[in-house]
Amino acid sequence: MEVMEAIRTRRSVRQYAPEPIPAEKLDTVLEAARLAPTACNYQPFKLVIVKDEATRRQLVPACAGQAFVAEAPVIIVGCAFEDQAYQRQAGSMSSFAIDLSIVFDHITLAAVDQGLGTCWIGAFDEQAVRDIVGVPQDVRVVALTPLGMPAEDPAMPPRKPIEELVCYEKWE
Amino acid sequence: MEVMEAIRTRRSVRQYAPEPIPAEKLDTVLEAARLAPTACNYQPFKLVIVKDEATRRQLVPACAGQAFVAEAPVIIVGCAFEDQAYQRQAGSMSSFAIDLSIVFDHITLAAVDQGLGTCWIGAFDEQAVRDIVGVPQDVRVVALTPLGMPAEDPAMPPRKPIEELVCYEKWE
Repeated sequence: MEVMEAIRTRRSVRQYAPEPIPAEKLDTVLEAARLAPTACNYQPFKLVIVKDEATRRQLVPACAGQAFVAEAPVIIVGCAFEDQAYQRQAGSMSSFAIDLSIVFDHITLAAVDQGLGTCWIGAFDEQAVRDIVGVPQDVRVVALTPLGMPAEDPAMPPRKPIEELVCYEKWE
Repeated sequence: MEVMEAIRTRRSVRQYAPEPIPAEKLDTVLEAARLAPTACNYQPFKLVIVKDEATRRQLVPACAGQAFVAEAPVIIVGCAFEDQAYQRQAGSMSSFAIDLSIVFDHITLAAVDQGLGTCWIGAFDEQAVRDIVGVPQDVRVVALTPLGMPAEDPAMPPRKPIEELVCYEKWE
């Protein structure tokens, strides 16, 4: 699929078919993640691929009760190593959330290309997710997404007009 | 261009041709940014598009002296409204950096599709960039990128093997 078509047709999918994902499609999505750029190329991230149904169901209450998360045959748990990420000197911002977000955006667009749906999950209890999946205490969970065949075709929520999002030369 | 080809061929471009960007290419890149998903669809971001050469040159010392930043005909300054972004309750993480990173990753891949180069700039002095472009004190600058016709064709830096980046079912 063309890049701009993937960008135009990507949706937050909240209904999934229960069928497993063909291995080659999952591999392609994970290869997109692997190729993502990260600050200084440190690649300070790890993805936990959860297929086990019991574990998926355990993750639902950790994700604010969003039941659809466990409907998909796969949940990707996006983890980042804060202490291995680039640290900006002036303004002291760690790039761990930026790096993981680049990886996850690559995943969402590669998923569209493969006919798969995703939904960025931002509402979750980080410690509860750590406990369920066994993520070490010093590793950050930045985002999760279900991954599976979409069973709905929602419209894109309205976006702001470009004039509100872009200005030229100086802030206005 | 196909999604996976864009992901495989995207590079951090540090040499640019001085030619201006055709308006329709810039518009396509900015439309990709506009369509990017953000937590709760709050769209808490604004992009400042800097074409003015004097301003671009001013940004070089604010970007750790990386002179190539000003070689491209456009610099995009990626700003986020921290106080308008989704705030996760448990673990209290604001999504402003995640949201802006999704927008910027859309930009980098749409740029490849349009034959343009980018380079995520993470090393910058946030306050210095604010001062040059007139960004309000309560707005965060999350990333910048030059945007222009590539004048180099670098190799992708080596990525970790998939086994280091992905595990199944539980953390290992």
